[in-house]
Order: sequence, then structure tokens, then C-alpha cells
Amino acid sequence: MDAGPKSTPSLRPRFQIAVRGEICLGPGKADLLEHIQQTGSISEAASRMGMSYMRAWTLVRTMNSSFREPLVTMVRGGKTKGGSKLSNTGHEVLALYRRLEFETRISTRATESSLLRLLRKS
Amino acid sequence: MDAGPKSTPSLRPRFQIAVRGEICLGPGKADLLEHIQQTGSISEAASRMGMSYMRAWTLVRTMNSSFREPLVTMVRGGKTKGGSKLSNTGHEVLALYRRLEFETRISTRATESSLLRLLRKS
Repeated sequence: MDAGPKSTPSLRPRFQIAVRGEICLGPGKADLLEHIQQTGSISEAASRMGMSYMRAWTLVRTMNSSFREPLVTMVRGGKTKGGSKLSNTGHEVLALYRRLEFETRISTRATESSLLRLLRKS
Repeated sequence: MDAGPKSTPSLRPRFQIAVRGEICLGPGKADLLEHIQQTGSISEAASRMGMSYMRAWTLVRTMNSSFREPLVTMVRGGKTKGGSKLSNTGHEVLALYRRLEFETRISTRATESSLLRLLRKS
């Protein structure tokens, strides 16, 4: 998060897809997909996000079981340390999630400015 | 949250305003403002949200110190159990927050549909 003393206020849109109370996709899972896409590895992605491999694997398993097709597939070596990559559906889901964020930033820009102007100057 | 077995998937946009790591406004605080607006009472608003009076008061205090003017003002009886209402800035902040949500729902509708179509049928 943002902790600098001179940091400017930020307004972050966060999207969560919930099915029967379970979060299938949210900001953390989307970031995890992106890191897997970039690194080709769940363990490397977990490391970049400062989370344990088991935690990352649990998030992947939740996503994989929530969508029509798994979002992350193993390319060699099984579940433990082998390479991983996004499936076509995984790429599509990540792109759609980022599009949600982009569309939101564009459409809310004026309202966001109005709201942030009401904050106390620090 | 949604826990019914036949519930449809939902995609909720959530906005948080953070200043130096502290959340000045988010979905919970916006709902609290709305309940204070409706009930004229922090304790009644807290009760409707299933939170303690002290918790609600802490949230109000955070909001009040984050904006140029307090969002919630006391109308009689001091801090403990007296009536409360939104200031003009409080009404404005709540309206702008709801507008953010509305603009987001409108602008992301097609992308949201594309994303939800990729979920597994349950």
C-alpha cells in the first residue's frame, strides 16, 4: 500500500466476483494471474507477491474450479514446482478484469476529482 | 454477503479512498453515512449494520478528520447518544460515492457480461 508522507490520495476501484459467498476473482487473484503470466511459475509469482506457495496454489485452485476452464495450467513437473501458464481462458479473464478497471477509471474521472477535492489538504 | 445456493454470480465494484495508507472512505463507511442520513442517529445506523456504536463512532471520526469539513455532525446531546446528521459535505460525499458506483456499473456492463459468461455453470 501507499505509506509515503507526501503520497497523494488515491481512489482505487476493486472488483470482486462472488459466487455463493466465495470470491472467484478479485484484485489479488488478478495480480497473481498477471505474475504467473509474466514468470511462468506459481512459486515465482507467489514470491513476487510476498505470499507462500501454498497460499498461491489455493488461490489458483479456487479460480480454476470457478471458471468453465482452468485459468492456470501446469506445463511440466506436476503441481509442486513445475512451470505454469495461463490458459486461453486465463488470458481472457485477466484481460477482461483489467478492462473493467480501465473502463472504470475513464468513466469516473470527473466524479473522482470532485470527491478528492473534498479531502482535507495534508 | 450472498449465500443462497441459487444466487447468481455478482460483480461488485468497491471504491476505497486511501490517504497515507488510511482508508478515508470505502463501501462500509458509505453505507454508514447512508444509514445515518436515513435514521438521524449513529447508534441506530450502527444497529442496522450490525456493528457496535463504538465501531461506528470510530468510522465517523476517521471520515470527519479526513475531509475538509466533518461529514457527520451532532445535532443534540453530544457524542454519546444524541441525534446526528450529515453535513452538506457529508451529503455531497455520499452522493459522489454512489455516482462512482453508478458510472462504473454503466460503463462496465458489457465487459462484466463477458467475464461472467466464463464462469462455470453451477
